[in-house]
Amino acid sequence: MPVTERIWTAALIVIGDEILSGRTQDKNIAQIASWLNVQGIRLREVRVIADDSDSIVEAVNTLRARNDYLFTTGGIGPTHDDITVDAIARALEVNVEIHPEARAMLQGYYETRGGLTDARLRMARVPAGSDLIENRMSGAPGIRHGNIFIMAGVPHITAGMLDMLTGTLEGGRPLMSAQIGCWVAESEIADILAKTERSHEGCQIGSYPFFREGRTGANFVIRSTDAATLEQCVADLTNRLESGGWPVVTGGI
Amino acid sequence: MPVTERIWTAALIVIGDEILSGRTQDKNIAQIASWLNVQGIRLREVRVIADDSDSIVEAVNTLRARNDYLFTTGGIGPTHDDITVDAIARALEVNVEIHPEARAMLQGYYETRGGLTDARLRMARVPAGSDLIENRMSGAPGIRHGNIFIMAGVPHITAGMLDMLTGTLEGGRPLMSAQIGCWVAESEIADILAKTERSHEGCQIGSYPFFREGRTGANFVIRSTDAATLEQCVADLTNRLESGGWPVVTGGI
Repeated sequence: MPVTERIWTAALIVIGDEILSGRTQDKNIAQIASWLNVQGIRLREVRVIADDSDSIVEAVNTLRARNDYLFTTGGIGPTHDDITVDAIARALEVNVEIHPEARAMLQGYYETRGGLTDARLRMARVPAGSDLIENRMSGAPGIRHGNIFIMAGVPHITAGMLDMLTGTLEGGRPLMSAQIGCWVAESEIADILAKTERSHEGCQIGSYPFFREGRTGANFVIRSTDAATLEQCVADLTNRLESGGWPVVTGGI
Repeated sequence: MPVTERIWTAALIVIGDEILSGRTQDKNIAQIASWLNVQGIRLREVRVIADDSDSIVEAVNTLRARNDYLFTTGGIGPTHDDITVDAIARALEVNVEIHPEARAMLQGYYETRGGLTDARLRMARVPAGSDLIENRMSGAPGIRHGNIFIMAGVPHITAGMLDMLTGTLEGGRPLMSAQIGCWVAESEIADILAKTERSHEGCQIGSYPFFREGRTGANFVIRSTDAATLEQCVADLTNRLESGGWPVVTGGI
């Protein structure tokens, strides 16, 4: 009897009017998704919401209840539109307090940069009971409260915070993937894909069509937490495609 | 007494394991957000969810109830992982049927491309009661059902579908925006931003810090549905920043 494997999941809330207005192309979803995979955690859902307290509270409470981890990005800077900390504290029904270590970090960082003003001190505010996530880039730390991780909106600062967290979160086996590609319209081989997926339990096959140089092609991504299963599925799919007359490009096109 | 302006809102559901796995960087959020702004419609919330029927049903029913329009991208191709149409039909409690016009379109498109197979005919399936959104790129149409717009996952196909919809949706006044930038740490001018925003009703100011060439800067995006209000707010903010000793770059840095 197969042992059911525990799947660890995370959700992400991207907080920011700049994403919803189309001004800024989000980069944190892909960055956090890839990082989570390596930690053995699946990103199960993402919400992009406005800088609005009620929306943040709703999303935080819904998503933290049904996932092992919750990440947020955006809205932790020093300006009037940075309301993430207050909204999350509201969701958790805790007070907001100045974290002494964050204050010390900011004091050090701003010592040669004009001093720790009231606006800057805002970045030391955390939901009561939080730990800090170090930020080597710009002084203001990220925040951890239980299974909630409150990160920056600027992608390279978030990247630094993720580095600090690498290897510290409990997860399952990382989801592995392999990619192969074919110059074929995916509609021609839809049956092959479905049949192959069905004959390899624990494997998922995604099909990603493209149009390039006037030709139709598709890449197929095979995913599994088990290396042997993954390898068998890739070999089987390659075989079926090539038997059908479609040469396969290993690694994708 | 000011007349309260009706704000038209939309939500977007991005359906796709490839976004949640980090394999693909989403481009549809920014593209649809920008297009909606021009139509006078605000993108209020986005969810990224897996190719999973229950997740789609939950998201569709929550978001269509509280927005004027709902868009989805992804999962309308010919393969086994394309379940969007079935899941949306489930959410709407209607049957799935073959749309005769879609079948005719696909028949024409595939006439010289190997014929209309069963897999390809899947792309003519729609929730009962739907209209089509023409797709000049690849035959398979998008689908409109009431205030729900079901679009492709491939961004340039979605772009073509948006073109077909341009000017056909009722909206309010488009949200206009202007951008200015300064070489300043946003924490130094947080007060100026907050005060300026407060003195211009109907304007929002977003602050977007960056680090470039070893220097700290920030861009400020001012938004309003009224051109005169926007202009006054930009002039006021420019004035306050320059009086403080921070030269402003019009258009942003």
